[in-house]
Amino acid sequence: MKGAPHMAEKLTPREKGFSEWYVDLVQKAKLADYSDVKGCMVIRPNGYALWENMQRVLDKMFKDLGHKNAYFPLLIPESYLKKEAEHVEGFNPQLAVVTHAGGSKLEEPYVIRPTSETIINRSFAKWIQSYRDLPLLLNQWANVMRWEMRTRLFLRTTEFLWQEGHTCHETEEDAEKETRQMLEVYRTFAEDYMAMPVMTGQKSESERFAGALRTYSIEAMMQDKKALQAGTSHNLGQNFAKAFDTQFQGRDGKMHHVWQTSWGVSTRLIGGLIMTHSDDAGLIVPPKLAATHVVIIPIFGKASDAEKAQVLEKTNALAADLRKAGLGVVLDDDDTKSPGFKYNEHELIGTCLRIELGPKDLAKNSCVMVRRDVRQKEFVSLDEAVSKAQAMLDAMQKDLFTKAKSFRDSHTFEVNSYEELKEKADQGFLLAHWNLDPKVEARIKEETGLTTRCRPFDLKQEPGKCVVTGEPSPGRIVFSKAY
Amino acid sequence: MKGAPHMAEKLTPREKGFSEWYVDLVQKAKLADYSDVKGCMVIRPNGYALWENMQRVLDKMFKDLGHKNAYFPLLIPESYLKKEAEHVEGFNPQLAVVTHAGGSKLEEPYVIRPTSETIINRSFAKWIQSYRDLPLLLNQWANVMRWEMRTRLFLRTTEFLWQEGHTCHETEEDAEKETRQMLEVYRTFAEDYMAMPVMTGQKSESERFAGALRTYSIEAMMQDKKALQAGTSHNLGQNFAKAFDTQFQGRDGKMHHVWQTSWGVSTRLIGGLIMTHSDDAGLIVPPKLAATHVVIIPIFGKASDAEKAQVLEKTNALAADLRKAGLGVVLDDDDTKSPGFKYNEHELIGTCLRIELGPKDLAKNSCVMVRRDVRQKEFVSLDEAVSKAQAMLDAMQKDLFTKAKSFRDSHTFEVNSYEELKEKADQGFLLAHWNLDPKVEARIKEETGLTTRCRPFDLKQEPGKCVVTGEPSPGRIVFSKAY
Repeated sequence: MKGAPHMAEKLTPREKGFSEWYVDLVQKAKLADYSDVKGCMVIRPNGYALWENMQRVLDKMFKDLGHKNAYFPLLIPESYLKKEAEHVEGFNPQLAVVTHAGGSKLEEPYVIRPTSETIINRSFAKWIQSYRDLPLLLNQWANVMRWEMRTRLFLRTTEFLWQEGHTCHETEEDAEKETRQMLEVYRTFAEDYMAMPVMTGQKSESERFAGALRTYSIEAMMQDKKALQAGTSHNLGQNFAKAFDTQFQGRDGKMHHVWQTSWGVSTRLIGGLIMTHSDDAGLIVPPKLAATHVVIIPIFGKASDAEKAQVLEKTNALAADLRKAGLGVVLDDDDTKSPGFKYNEHELIGTCLRIELGPKDLAKNSCVMVRRDVRQKEFVSLDEAVSKAQAMLDAMQKDLFTKAKSFRDSHTFEVNSYEELKEKADQGFLLAHWNLDPKVEARIKEETGLTTRCRPFDLKQEPGKCVVTGEPSPGRIVFSKAY
Repeated sequence: MKGAPHMAEKLTPREKGFSEWYVDLVQKAKLADYSDVKGCMVIRPNGYALWENMQRVLDKMFKDLGHKNAYFPLLIPESYLKKEAEHVEGFNPQLAVVTHAGGSKLEEPYVIRPTSETIINRSFAKWIQSYRDLPLLLNQWANVMRWEMRTRLFLRTTEFLWQEGHTCHETEEDAEKETRQMLEVYRTFAEDYMAMPVMTGQKSESERFAGALRTYSIEAMMQDKKALQAGTSHNLGQNFAKAFDTQFQGRDGKMHHVWQTSWGVSTRLIGGLIMTHSDDAGLIVPPKLAATHVVIIPIFGKASDAEKAQVLEKTNALAADLRKAGLGVVLDDDDTKSPGFKYNEHELIGTCLRIELGPKDLAKNSCVMVRRDVRQKEFVSLDEAVSKAQAMLDAMQKDLFTKAKSFRDSHTFEVNSYEELKEKADQGFLLAHWNLDPKVEARIKEETGLTTRCRPFDLKQEPGKCVVTGEPSPGRIVFSKAY
C-alpha cells in the first residue's frame, strides 16, 4: 500500500455479498480497522465521530431523566462474579483474566469487566443506607471485554465501547418502570436519531441477561433482512442486591434489598446504522448524527482565474453561512483532485449533502444540491441555499426512517406452520406461535438458524398454537436470523 | 454506616494533616471512593462531573487545533512494548498482564495499555503513505493502567482516565512545534479554567518519558507547597517510528520515518484542582469547571404558610432566571434540613455561590449572596440578582487564580547553596543551579527528598555553578518535593 495513490475505492455490491460490502465499507470509509489484538478493532476518526454524536444525544437523554455519570474500576476480582450464580455461568467463557501485575503473580486474579453489575453493587452496598438514598440513578461510559470466537467490526468485537446504566429502587414496580422507560429511550434514540425503526419487546428465557429477572430489547432489521439486537434493558430484581447485600432501611424502619435495573447500548449501534441505510456507493448517515452535513465543491472546468476567484469567494461565503446555521461543513477546494473524484469520496464517507458551484451556476445566482441518499440534482437559488439545505437535511432524516420502516414492514410476516417458518427463514421477521419451551426454541435454531428476537409490545398478544408442537402459545414472538 | 443519619461531616483541618484533609475531602464530598481492586478508585458523580467539564473544554481546544478523536485497543501484545528498548524498560515494572482469555491460556500475553504509543504506531504504519497524509493529529480519551505501589485518590491510581494525543509530522521542527503548542494548551487550560498557575518547562533526562527525545511538563504548587506534575508533552523524535517502521514518501520521493509527539493529562488534574483551592470547610471549584454554580436556599424561620409560599414562588423564579443565564442551579427546598446544615453541605461539595432568601429579604426585595471562597455575606437587590451572581462568579474565577499565584510566587526562591536547598526543602519551589548529572540529581533526591521539576521557560537561563558540585550549570532548574 505504501505510496499508493489516494482514490475513492469501489465496494463489493450488496447483491454480490452483503458481508463483503459491509467490511469493505467500514474499512474504505475509514470507520474502523482491524488490529493484531484478537477480535479488537481500531475505531478511526470517521467512525469515532459517529460514536461521539451518539454519546452526546444519549447522554443528554439520560441526564434529563435524572441519571448521573460515574466511573468504576476496569478490573473485577474474580470472586465477585461468583457471587451471582447465573451471572458467572453466563459470562465465564468470555472472560479475559489478569493473573500478573507489577512483576508478580496476583493472589486473586482479576477479570476485565464484561459488564459491571458486580463491582457496582459492591459500592452500592456501601453508599445506600436509607430509602432517602433511592432511587439511585447512575450511568457509566466505558470499555468492556467479552472474548468472542467470531468477531465482526462494530457488530461483535472482543472489546467494545458502551454505556451501562445501573439503578436502584425502593420497589419492584419502580424498577420495572425504569427498565421500560430506558427501553423507550433507546427506541426514541434509534428511531428519531438513527432513523432506524425498532421493535421493542421481551426476550425469551434463554436470551435473558445472566442474572436478570427479565430482559427487554430493541430489535432492528438490517438490509439483508437479518435482525440486530441494538440495545437491552434488564430488570435485575433483587438478584445482585442479595448477592452483594445491597440493603436500605425502608419507610417501615426495616431493612430491604434494593430493586435494580441495568441497560446498555454500544458501538454495535454504528454497525446497525451502516447496515440500515448505506448503499453500494458507501455510507449514508442520518443528518442528526452526521459530523459533516455539507460538502461544497467548487467546479472550475475551463474557468478563467477571475472566474475561479469569484467562485471561491462565493463558496467561502456559503460555507460560513451554513456553519452559522449550525451545520458541519467541508469546503473541498483541493485542485489536485477532480470534481468526480470528490463526489465519489464524499459518497463513500457519507457526507449528507453535496453542493456544486461553478461559474455558470454563479452567473445564474444558483448552485446544485445533491442529497446523499437519493442522489438527484436540484438547482437552488443561492439566496435560498441555507434554508434549502436545512430543508433537504430534514427531509433526508425523515425519508431514511420511512424507507427503512417500509423495508422492515414489507419483510415482516405472520407465519402459521413450521414449514412456512423454514421456507421464509431468510425473508425477515417471522411472527409465530411458540410454546415457550427452550428445547423447542433450540430445535428451531438448530434446524433453521432462526432465533427468537422478542415478544413485541406493539403486537396484540393473542393465544394460539406452537408452530412446532401444536401446544398452547400465549402469543406470537419474532423469529429471525440475527447478528 | 447502615442507617446513619445524613449530615455534613467535618474534615481534618489542613494544618493538622494535609494528607488526611485531602482524603477526608475526597470521600466526604463524594468525589471518589476506594475499591477492592488494588489502587483503583471509584469516581463518584460529584468527581466525574468535574472530569466531564474538563473533558468538554480540553476536547474543544484540541479539535480547534485540528485534532480528531479515535480509539485504539485496551490490550497491547507484549511484543509491541519490546520494540522500543527504553519504553519497555520504563513501563515493564508497572504492567498488568492478561495471560488467559476465553477459558484458555494465550499464546502471547497481552498487557493492559499503560500508554498507547506502541499500538497506535502499528496503525500509523498502515495508514500513512505519503507526506500528504501528514500531519496526522489524533487524540484518544481512555483508561490506562500502571501498577503502582503507593496510590492516592485521583493523584496516583493504578487505573486512571486520561487523554493521550498522538501526532505524526514531516519534520523534526514540526514535531517540536506541536509538542510546545500542546504544552501551551495545557497551560491555558490550567490557568484560565482550573485557576491553577503552572510553570512550563523541560524535564530532566531522568524524568523524561520512556522513549521520548524530550519531555515538557506543567508544574503546579499545591497548598502544602509540594509540586504536582499536571500534564506532559513529549517530542518522541523518530524513536517509535523506527521501532514500528512508520514511514512516508516525502516531497523528495524518498521514504522517511515520521516525527512524532504525544501528550496527556489525566484525572490527576482533579486532585490538583482540589489541593490548589479547597479549604477546611470543603471543596472550592473554579466557576468555569463547576457543575453547580448556585444553590438557592429558602429561609423559613417562623414564617407563615403564606410567607413560605411567597418565598418559594420567588426562589423558583430566580432559579429559572439563573438557569436561563446558563448557570447550573440547585434549589434546595428540602424542609427536613435546617439552613445551617445546607450551608455546610454545599460548602463541603463546593457549590460556588449560595443565595439565601427569606420573608424579611423578600420584603426588602433583596437576597443574601455568599461566595464559596471568601464566605462573606452580600445583600443584593433581587432586580440585579442574575447579573450580580454572574459578576461574583467571574470575580471568584479571577480571585482564585490570583490567590494561588501569589501563594506560589511567595513560596518560590532562588537558592544558591546546597545548605540552603536542604533548609528550604519544604518551603516550595527552589530555583537552583545543577550540573545536569543524573547522579547528583539522585543524590539530592536521596538526601533531601527534592526532585527536579522542570527547567522553566519563563525564567531567563543564565549559567552558574551547581549547588552541590560547583561544576558549571546552564541555568536554574526547579527543585521541589512532589506528588
